[in-house]
Amino acid sequence: MDVVAQMRKFVEPSSVAIIGVPRSPWTIRGTTIDILRNLINQGYQGKIYPIHPQATEIQRLKAYASIAEAPENIDLAVISLPRDVVPGIVKECINKGVKAITIVTQGFADADDEGKQLQKEIDDAIKGTDTRILGPNTFGTANAYINFSSSFVATQMEEVPVGFMCQTGVFFPGLVGLKLIGRAIDLGNGCDVHFSDGLEYFEQDVETKVIALQIEGMKDATRFLKVANRVARRKPIVALKAGKSEQAAQAAQSHTGSLVGKDEIWSAALKQVGVIKVDDIEELGDTARAFHTLPSIKGRRIGITTISGGLGIICIDACQKYGLEIAKLSAATVNRFSVLCPSWQNVSNPVDTWPAVGVTKKASLFEVQEIAAKALLDDAGVDAVLCILGVFVPSAEIDLRQLVEQASKSHPDKPLVFYLYGLLANEAKNKLEETSKTLAFPSPERAIRALGHLADYSEFRTSYERL
Amino acid sequence: MDVVAQMRKFVEPSSVAIIGVPRSPWTIRGTTIDILRNLINQGYQGKIYPIHPQATEIQRLKAYASIAEAPENIDLAVISLPRDVVPGIVKECINKGVKAITIVTQGFADADDEGKQLQKEIDDAIKGTDTRILGPNTFGTANAYINFSSSFVATQMEEVPVGFMCQTGVFFPGLVGLKLIGRAIDLGNGCDVHFSDGLEYFEQDVETKVIALQIEGMKDATRFLKVANRVARRKPIVALKAGKSEQAAQAAQSHTGSLVGKDEIWSAALKQVGVIKVDDIEELGDTARAFHTLPSIKGRRIGITTISGGLGIICIDACQKYGLEIAKLSAATVNRFSVLCPSWQNVSNPVDTWPAVGVTKKASLFEVQEIAAKALLDDAGVDAVLCILGVFVPSAEIDLRQLVEQASKSHPDKPLVFYLYGLLANEAKNKLEETSKTLAFPSPERAIRALGHLADYSEFRTSYERL
Repeated sequence: MDVVAQMRKFVEPSSVAIIGVPRSPWTIRGTTIDILRNLINQGYQGKIYPIHPQATEIQRLKAYASIAEAPENIDLAVISLPRDVVPGIVKECINKGVKAITIVTQGFADADDEGKQLQKEIDDAIKGTDTRILGPNTFGTANAYINFSSSFVATQMEEVPVGFMCQTGVFFPGLVGLKLIGRAIDLGNGCDVHFSDGLEYFEQDVETKVIALQIEGMKDATRFLKVANRVARRKPIVALKAGKSEQAAQAAQSHTGSLVGKDEIWSAALKQVGVIKVDDIEELGDTARAFHTLPSIKGRRIGITTISGGLGIICIDACQKYGLEIAKLSAATVNRFSVLCPSWQNVSNPVDTWPAVGVTKKASLFEVQEIAAKALLDDAGVDAVLCILGVFVPSAEIDLRQLVEQASKSHPDKPLVFYLYGLLANEAKNKLEETSKTLAFPSPERAIRALGHLADYSEFRTSYERL
Repeated sequence: MDVVAQMRKFVEPSSVAIIGVPRSPWTIRGTTIDILRNLINQGYQGKIYPIHPQATEIQRLKAYASIAEAPENIDLAVISLPRDVVPGIVKECINKGVKAITIVTQGFADADDEGKQLQKEIDDAIKGTDTRILGPNTFGTANAYINFSSSFVATQMEEVPVGFMCQTGVFFPGLVGLKLIGRAIDLGNGCDVHFSDGLEYFEQDVETKVIALQIEGMKDATRFLKVANRVARRKPIVALKAGKSEQAAQAAQSHTGSLVGKDEIWSAALKQVGVIKVDDIEELGDTARAFHTLPSIKGRRIGITTISGGLGIICIDACQKYGLEIAKLSAATVNRFSVLCPSWQNVSNPVDTWPAVGVTKKASLFEVQEIAAKALLDDAGVDAVLCILGVFVPSAEIDLRQLVEQASKSHPDKPLVFYLYGLLANEAKNKLEETSKTLAFPSPERAIRALGHLADYSEFRTSYERL
């Protein structure tokens, strides 16, 4: 069976056996009863087979005494049992012909010598078979498109075109501001299924437009880099590499038994194969959202329209930091906006719109921004536009939505993003992002950082298209 | 009159003349009618004197034909009139004996040669007098404690002990996540009143515990650094220095006529005098909030309790980046927590609490975190604690609030902060921050960055106490 078909059993299962479901519900403790309840609550449409030695029914589902007694054609078995019994259950699954096994249980290579030995037993069990194992020490997989998640904590899933791979389950319940799980794979200790397998799956998955990774370590970095380099030419890959110091490396050893490697080497290697490396959780979320929401960018020249001259200067600093250029505006662009301005204003990029707002009687507060934003978009020397605007009136997002719609028609190849501030900014931001293909970032610096990553990726893609 | 008494007229005025109020309201355009309406709407309790050549009443307030005809003892005159007439009005104010004048109007040193000449006229007018000028090109001042703001855009004020000084009005209406104006001074072009004056005022103001600055440039950096060095020994000063590149320097010249100086020199100079330099808007907000919410920190040794081992590793990276140390735990601390853990777990810092949550029957999900957090706080080798927790049940903030209260009693000298994630995290975070002296940061990295700044400042303070 090829890797992609195999991985589909993990991420798109039609039937799941949950092995070791206790009969009485317990508090959140990572037991299989929670996995089962979540599957039911989320509306998973596939078949669910609870496995329990004594029970005949669990959560109104028919239960089976062992995997051997369950129906045939089980795509995925999920095991959450004390570690000692796991190798035996794995062998039962193999005998049953199950090709995909997720082991939730902790205490293997992430733990003591006994755990390491148990992990080796599991590894040995699948050798020579076409059964593959995800984990141990994992939340498993999630797929918003079929309401599936093997997480024992409720997963915040959204049908976003992001394929997520991680080595910690913390991303499944949803980090604040980072609800981006369309399809997700938690590798946990990664005894068998690893990043390269997931990459090959997401490469083929038509709904996945962006791949986001949280990496602790890698067993087979050479294969990963080779696969990543191929996949990155088709889809952007964004990676948060954790474990930069010796101390972090030790912690990763206890967390997933991973060898983290040297950070400088990782940075250089990821860059070379076209993977966008980010530095923190917020940047991971911002960047993944930018890739799946915005059009790709043609170059590094940014046009900025700002109601605050002070923020304009802060934006120039950010462009310098994140490798973007402040676009040099054409005379035509300058003239289009200058007619609204006081005679003393020397219009340049970033375009400070406040003086015009103060003096012109030709345009409202919003219209001044709109004229500036459109002039920037029309300028052939501008590759993307950041619009900075105070939101002081309700329903401001309606005007902004129209601006985004017009911009995406007239300039489908130029990202238009926002930084909104003021009393009503959050509300406007949320409504705008819900209804339009744009992003309103929490700070101008974060907007520019995200555009910088789009530019890095475009440059990588172009360098390959030229070959 | 000494600087502090003078600055009080700007920030704590008992009476304000608003010069140039038009009779018919206009849209948001920075006119004095907006300033007047905001003053009334915000509930400013001082006396307001609208000045207009023809009107006798504006917004139900008695209006005066000129400043000369207004009552005596006017603390502050706010001027928003076309730039050409401003010098004449300034002279009228001086003749009336007004000691504090805010000039809102743009188009002076921020603009063309004519503007520069007009600014010089204003400068000359106050020479030899004890009248001082704020601006031109400013939102003026704001003071949440007396519901005063001379901003023409509604100001989001909160009675927080932050004294804010900036060169752009954008901070007055409130940036997203940065409502931190207790008292604020927008210097604008800074023709007369400048950062040093404000620092001396905030140094004396008993309600100001933290001073936050957004700096573009400085006329008298030598005096500023001298004053800052004195003030920083008493109160933390946090500064966002904008204008790092040549291009940004040119933009600052157009924005406020400021000379920005070299960034490396600024960085070194600010560090030397004990000013905490931050790199972006979010960091400015996080850091100012940390200083006024949390106790000061004694050292750099951080204890972390995390329900996610993966985030623990991300925290180690962040500690390395922001100059903190992962505390080495005492045997007693390790033992206190180990009793809850599976036998295979080797407890160390960051304390991964999930394995214990999974196996112990002695404690609930929250109790496990609580035991870990308290053990860390009790450890003499730990200077601050970050607690990372998923929020999956409503009202989780009640438990957290109790933890914070107990911690602040038993360890009033150790900051305890949070990173909360999960479906109900935002709600819990907001409630917790409203009711308790703690902060729940939007990412673990931002929590650690803020603690790093607390540590930098403590070190600076200690170095002076030793002298």
